[in-house]
Amino acid sequence: MERIDVALIGAGRMGQIHGPHAAETPGLRLRYVVDARADAADALCRRTGATSATLAQALDDPSIKGVLICSPTDQHLAHALAALDAGKAVFCEKPIDLDLQKVVQARARFDRARFLLGFNRRFDPNFRALRQRLLAGQAGRLETLHLVNHDPAPPPPGFIPSSGGLFKDFTIHDLDLARWLLDEEPVQVYTAASCLVDPEIGRLGDVDTARTVLKTASGRLCVVSNTRRSGYGYDQRIEAFGSTGMIAVGNAQCDTVQTLDEGGVTGAAIQPGFAERYREAYRAQIHHFADVVHGRAEPLVGYADGIAALVLAEACAASARSGTVITL
Amino acid sequence: MERIDVALIGAGRMGQIHGPHAAETPGLRLRYVVDARADAADALCRRTGATSATLAQALDDPSIKGVLICSPTDQHLAHALAALDAGKAVFCEKPIDLDLQKVVQARARFDRARFLLGFNRRFDPNFRALRQRLLAGQAGRLETLHLVNHDPAPPPPGFIPSSGGLFKDFTIHDLDLARWLLDEEPVQVYTAASCLVDPEIGRLGDVDTARTVLKTASGRLCVVSNTRRSGYGYDQRIEAFGSTGMIAVGNAQCDTVQTLDEGGVTGAAIQPGFAERYREAYRAQIHHFADVVHGRAEPLVGYADGIAALVLAEACAASARSGTVITL
Amino acid sequence: MERIDVALIGAGRMGQIHGPHAAETPGLRLRYVVDARADAADALCRRTGATSATLAQALDDPSIKGVLICSPTDQHLAHALAALDAGKAVFCEKPIDLDLQKVVQARARFDRARFLLGFNRRFDPNFRALRQRLLAGQAGRLETLHLVNHDPAPPPPGFIPSSGGLFKDFTIHDLDLARWLLDEEPVQVYTAASCLVDPEIGRLGDVDTARTVLKTASGRLCVVSNTRRSGYGYDQRIEAFGSTGMIAVGNAQCDTVQTLDEGGVTGAAIQPGFAERYREAYRAQIHHFADVVHGRAEPLVGYADGIAALVLAEACAASARSGTVITL
Amino acid sequence: MERIDVALIGAGRMGQIHGPHAAETPGLRLRYVVDARADAADALCRRTGATSATLAQALDDPSIKGVLICSPTDQHLAHALAALDAGKAVFCEKPIDLDLQKVVQARARFDRARFLLGFNRRFDPNFRALRQRLLAGQAGRLETLHLVNHDPAPPPPGFIPSSGGLFKDFTIHDLDLARWLLDEEPVQVYTAASCLVDPEIGRLGDVDTARTVLKTASGRLCVVSNTRRSGYGYDQRIEAFGSTGMIAVGNAQCDTVQTLDEGGVTGAAIQPGFAERYREAYRAQIHHFADVVHGRAEPLVGYADGIAALVLAEACAASARSGTVITL
Repeated sequence: MERIDVALIGAGRMGQIHGPHAAETPGLRLRYVVDARADAADALCRRTGATSATLAQALDDPSIKGVLICSPTDQHLAHALAALDAGKAVFCEKPIDLDLQKVVQARARFDRARFLLGFNRRFDPNFRALRQRLLAGQAGRLETLHLVNHDPAPPPPGFIPSSGGLFKDFTIHDLDLARWLLDEEPVQVYTAASCLVDPEIGRLGDVDTARTVLKTASGRLCVVSNTRRSGYGYDQRIEAFGSTGMIAVGNAQCDTVQTLDEGGVTGAAIQPGFAERYREAYRAQIHHFADVVHGRAEPLVGYADGIAALVLAEACAASARSGTVITL
Repeated sequence: MERIDVALIGAGRMGQIHGPHAAETPGLRLRYVVDARADAADALCRRTGATSATLAQALDDPSIKGVLICSPTDQHLAHALAALDAGKAVFCEKPIDLDLQKVVQARARFDRARFLLGFNRRFDPNFRALRQRLLAGQAGRLETLHLVNHDPAPPPPGFIPSSGGLFKDFTIHDLDLARWLLDEEPVQVYTAASCLVDPEIGRLGDVDTARTVLKTASGRLCVVSNTRRSGYGYDQRIEAFGSTGMIAVGNAQCDTVQTLDEGGVTGAAIQPGFAERYREAYRAQIHHFADVVHGRAEPLVGYADGIAALVLAEACAASARSGTVITL
Repeated sequence: MERIDVALIGAGRMGQIHGPHAAETPGLRLRYVVDARADAADALCRRTGATSATLAQALDDPSIKGVLICSPTDQHLAHALAALDAGKAVFCEKPIDLDLQKVVQARARFDRARFLLGFNRRFDPNFRALRQRLLAGQAGRLETLHLVNHDPAPPPPGFIPSSGGLFKDFTIHDLDLARWLLDEEPVQVYTAASCLVDPEIGRLGDVDTARTVLKTASGRLCVVSNTRRSGYGYDQRIEAFGSTGMIAVGNAQCDTVQTLDEGGVTGAAIQPGFAERYREAYRAQIHHFADVVHGRAEPLVGYADGIAALVLAEACAASARSGTVITL
Repeated sequence: MERIDVALIGAGRMGQIHGPHAAETPGLRLRYVVDARADAADALCRRTGATSATLAQALDDPSIKGVLICSPTDQHLAHALAALDAGKAVFCEKPIDLDLQKVVQARARFDRARFLLGFNRRFDPNFRALRQRLLAGQAGRLETLHLVNHDPAPPPPGFIPSSGGLFKDFTIHDLDLARWLLDEEPVQVYTAASCLVDPEIGRLGDVDTARTVLKTASGRLCVVSNTRRSGYGYDQRIEAFGSTGMIAVGNAQCDTVQTLDEGGVTGAAIQPGFAERYREAYRAQIHHFADVVHGRAEPLVGYADGIAALVLAEACAASARSGTVITL
């Protein structure tokens, strides 16, 4: 297959995940890595065979047909717009921006854009299999959902102020999953939240533990369970309850070894973090981006999904703050 | 061990569960079965070696030290008070009554009573083991709870009007479990509910599907998941999340057979209903009642727990009806 | 259903299991318990409502239609023959006798007898479900079997000399299972055995650890795995491999609680012993005996099966002793 | 880390697995691919960045420090010796040769060789974790082993004549595992074998279904379960039984999705074949080879292990053919 050149903006945590996948994905060649921190850019170039470049170099090069945006959250929107304006297909890490108004105001510039938003869970093979079975009616008519998203350990408090808070930073993944699986928009949101994990998170005005209930117009219910610290690994589960049964995605364990003795049956811990848990999802996401760059597919998740998830995240935050139910 | 005589009031569905257990429990002898329906009473007498009697005969007999009340819900309170006034130890199926005010008004007559309320889940060996581990700190400090209580199939619509509705009839078990495990009273209640299973239930003014979030003063959160029809069996699970890990009770399957072929790995369905799932709990409950009758134990769950669960059930109903958060 | 009177011979370990089941089985009444040890007989009579009697009283009473033989192994044959000669239906604990020749010589007296041999595993609901699926072709054509039978802890050495040795005492259950499931007689037997658990067992001329391979005329293979001490509970498993898949029976755990923390996922130990593991099998066996007593069923396992299993057990012992393959 | 150049001989099935791993392993650079079939060599060069070369070019190039031998089995030995004589470190797919005598005669040329034999299962993270726990005494003293190695589907009959037969081609992996885990050499071998899967395999003089029992001098027992066709995937399990418990490696399923309905609980099939099941083992094996090439490690499995496994495989074949027990 012909390989089309793409550029990566941002050689940090997410760039180090997406860059190598872009380099290995059939149909793509990672040509440039853009990062003001020369060390980070160079290290990633060595791993991927890419060349370090400035943003202008990358966007001005007409051979570059796609751009992957992994810069800090507060630069996502500017980088996305610059790349779209330059005619590139764009893959952008979530969220588009923490400020819903700024995203809404840019609406026109996303029109007809080839813009893929980084809601990675939609590309997880397990979650996709669950959704396919739901669509095939294997649980009858979907009625309720339970989404578990528990981080293994809290971020350093220094991360909190720029994170957008628990709902825009973390719950937003579940809100997107809920929309994707419910196949219907929530019309009521209730969130109960607490600061139970780290009091410093509370002092910074955020929460670390939450339960959210979404209700759709037809009466479907979805619970989202979040904590910043599970103590037992990266707990990522879905239970979808339908009129004739249940379809569930469980956690994978780190190995298949079991020990049986007088004390019981002991197996390995569940996977420790997002890099292991969503490796295949990240890979599949970039494969899909290759299809978008090649013009073989429309982006499966884009600007409108980003807006909708942000609206729900703001409703969660408002509900948690006010102790009331938010009607959308 | 000396056997003390007890009487059973009500030879219906629950009487047919508790009667044989009373007959087999060391330290008890089931002397009388009281039921106006002679056929039902006689059949249960044949199974247990008891004698059919009137209520007055049973309560007037000074050798009867304990009474098990399995009459229809709207007679629980009158039967309980009559038996308590006659100086008997009382085991009473839940709820004490559907009308909270009537129960509250009878408060004085429950003072110093030996009154065991039939919240059977507290006696389930699995749930007890989970609670012991929580109390032993095996998951650190308890933070959140997830309770799943899904019935396999809905009751006939005719049952709904006298049932007290989903929350007093069904969710009430979970509300009691939540109080027992949280070790702290909920101060906020939110319930989202729908009628998704059977429109007839909705026409009768009830709901069949609900998600409830309880919040305690210290910020602990508990989700209760209810449906009248799962389609896959009697789903009864607890997940307790603490500061260092999680303790969970899962469902038991009907057998231990697995088939592996090209299509996957298939095992038996989960247990189909309450009789199988809570057999050991029902048995242990009557063993505990024997201890109460013999004066060896105080009732582990009684009048105050019945009141507290009813208050929460009314809050759930009010929240579901109004779409608002109820503060207690 | 009309209840027919039966008598139990032997109030020891197995009598205490079968006696109460006989007392509770619809269609049976346990009338007599026969045991020279008055204490043991009386205790069992109190549990079951039976009366203590001598062997002659029990066999001479024409109302007694069935006899359950739970006496010491070396009396099984004599008691069985006496009861058969008295015209009773007989349930007899395995083995009929440790001496194959004595059993063979009595062949004529078992002709047309209603004789049910206590190979309890054939009545286990899990094993029965596995067999039904095999017969229904759910794994295609059966090719190989793997039977695991590991005791939790070794018997006291004093039990060994009268036990018949590992193969007649313990492996015999698996040999019967193998015949029942293979639906074809083994024609070759190889057993490798060691004394690894307790050297005292070796000094008494027995082994405590063995692996046996059976081969049938059509080439089906069956492995039997035995040890006198697992260290982790009573390991009782079957794997049946067919031309299109596998059907397996696994172990049940003692409860459904799981703990997840940094160290992994820990569940309860498997069931500790035969009383828990085969409770339903023992119950079903006596239900089947009731059908035999009532003339509603022919015994599902009888004299010929006892002979065949003994022949195989002797072949295992001969193979283990000689280090050669035994052809039958 | 400095990258050292290596060459790959053979661009067939195994070369296509090992070549890319060599190209991606830190510390290695895959410089040459040697295969007379130019198409196969070129395709692999494109995937790995290597250059097509002749055997002489690869062995004469002094910058090449290591050679991976993935040629047809009947060329393994010649290629291995040529590479060793040229002073290279050698990784060689198993078996060294099907003819034990030829391998034995070459013994002197393997002296002091840096020769890593491709018994991939020793590098599986699950099996390694099991072995570490055994060595750490987590199951007490090891007594017995059960190894399951069932292929999903039989090879085409055309493969059989050059395969060496079931025992040298397939069982040999288990024989090596047995030696590695038992930590003691088997002294007795018994194999029962049949042709149940494909009569054509039987016509070609081979078997497709076997059970082998190994016994060591100290009395440890090991069962090996083999079939050429499971019908349900690639069944690869170990159970290690010790004096205080059991350590087991189970199969991984293809995904973590489960469906619950009236019919039961259904999950994904187990992994379908060796490429998925042993991906991490293959990768780790080449990482270890990098350590050998760099002089940081001695080969963990080499010539002597290859001989020992071949001797056992021949004993299995002899036992199956003769129906007798083979003493080594």
